[in-house]
Amino acid sequence: MLDPERIQELEKLQKTLDYRFGDLNLLNKSLTHKSFVNETASPLKNNERFEFLGDSVLDLIVSDYLIGSFTDFSEGKLSKIRAAVVNETCLAGLARKLNLGRFLLLGKGEEQSGGRDKSSLLANAYEALTGAVYLDGGLGEVKRVFLGGLKQEIRQRVDSRGIQDFKSELQEYTQTHLNCIPAYRVVAEHGPDHEKTFEVELLIQNKAQGRGVGRNKKEAEQAAARQTLETLRPEQGA
Amino acid sequence: MLDPERIQELEKLQKTLDYRFGDLNLLNKSLTHKSFVNETASPLKNNERFEFLGDSVLDLIVSDYLIGSFTDFSEGKLSKIRAAVVNETCLAGLARKLNLGRFLLLGKGEEQSGGRDKSSLLANAYEALTGAVYLDGGLGEVKRVFLGGLKQEIRQRVDSRGIQDFKSELQEYTQTHLNCIPAYRVVAEHGPDHEKTFEVELLIQNKAQGRGVGRNKKEAEQAAARQTLETLRPEQGA
Repeated sequence: MLDPERIQELEKLQKTLDYRFGDLNLLNKSLTHKSFVNETASPLKNNERFEFLGDSVLDLIVSDYLIGSFTDFSEGKLSKIRAAVVNETCLAGLARKLNLGRFLLLGKGEEQSGGRDKSSLLANAYEALTGAVYLDGGLGEVKRVFLGGLKQEIRQRVDSRGIQDFKSELQEYTQTHLNCIPAYRVVAEHGPDHEKTFEVELLIQNKAQGRGVGRNKKEAEQAAARQTLETLRPEQGA
Repeated sequence: MLDPERIQELEKLQKTLDYRFGDLNLLNKSLTHKSFVNETASPLKNNERFEFLGDSVLDLIVSDYLIGSFTDFSEGKLSKIRAAVVNETCLAGLARKLNLGRFLLLGKGEEQSGGRDKSSLLANAYEALTGAVYLDGGLGEVKRVFLGGLKQEIRQRVDSRGIQDFKSELQEYTQTHLNCIPAYRVVAEHGPDHEKTFEVELLIQNKAQGRGVGRNKKEAEQAAARQTLETLRPEQGA
């Protein structure tokens, strides 16, 4: 059904993915944009149904990973992280890393308007590809093939969120409830220069609250803010 | 960790589910509402994280089933059906069939305000329970335990949607594009009374368009509307 040239082309993608499809038509379909088949054939031949499936597959493997890896994060926090990863921008980025654009089958109009590098199109193809691997090899293979890339994105977002999170959450809390903002003070520095740790004390209305330790001041402040939050509103946890 | 009385109680639910947990604490946690633990313990002990996971699990097993069973439905249609099933009303109904309310652990306030029969609470517990089975037994067990109930809900919604869908879609189309509404005419009845089929012809501006056959007039009209839609706007498919 697929011509030899296309098969050779898809071989490259399979190598990048480190996954060999039992049914290569699934892979080909996951890369078939609706513009390619619109005029000639049934809409059932494009990748939109796979995209529908792949979206669910991605949601699950990300949720599964988050639940297992961030055992002290609330459901709300996990949802935020998942939404920060399973979205167009992030998935398009992952698609670009796989060079997915070059393998897409597009209609002429879409090709001419730069469809091969459109984020929406790439993110959809990434989802469709996930759906195709799921249909071909099951959830375990999806995890093996895609979770590595997703984990990196998750880690980046958790780190950047972590840095803002506790300090700004605490500030919001103290502004609302205590009509003031917290202050931070370095109380100690330990260790040699190349592996120094900082200890920070957090003050609210000049009264010492939590303390935190970290490899830099920011990290220590975060830790202090987190500890203080846990004391001020224990019911919400970290 | 769980007292013998609670274990006996959970035994009943396991029988209903036809699933035996390797780790009964997972089942217990999936039934623990935040009101039960709010004052005494960490929020990590309630069912909200499992609910987060279970929501993804349900989305996937429904998507997977839809993709395999409705091979001629567009992605848009599949999404509508999934949204009609994986939502509070439907999941609360499924939770009630399992009598899930009686097994919930609630705080006093929630108990007194009728929490045991609140739809939001029941739907969340159903999701959490799905998450717990996934963690305990994997995706295959989730399918075995929950897909039966979900399939019934899906079938009901597909049937009722099917009945409205094509006729109202076509009417919308003809009103917009042709400034008229379609008419239906029974052109034949076949077979004996107890297994009669009807043949219906669809007319637009007095011109015959599609035809449809069904076990009753409504079904035949739907089939005719569907066929006509496919002729009028082939690019969108059924």
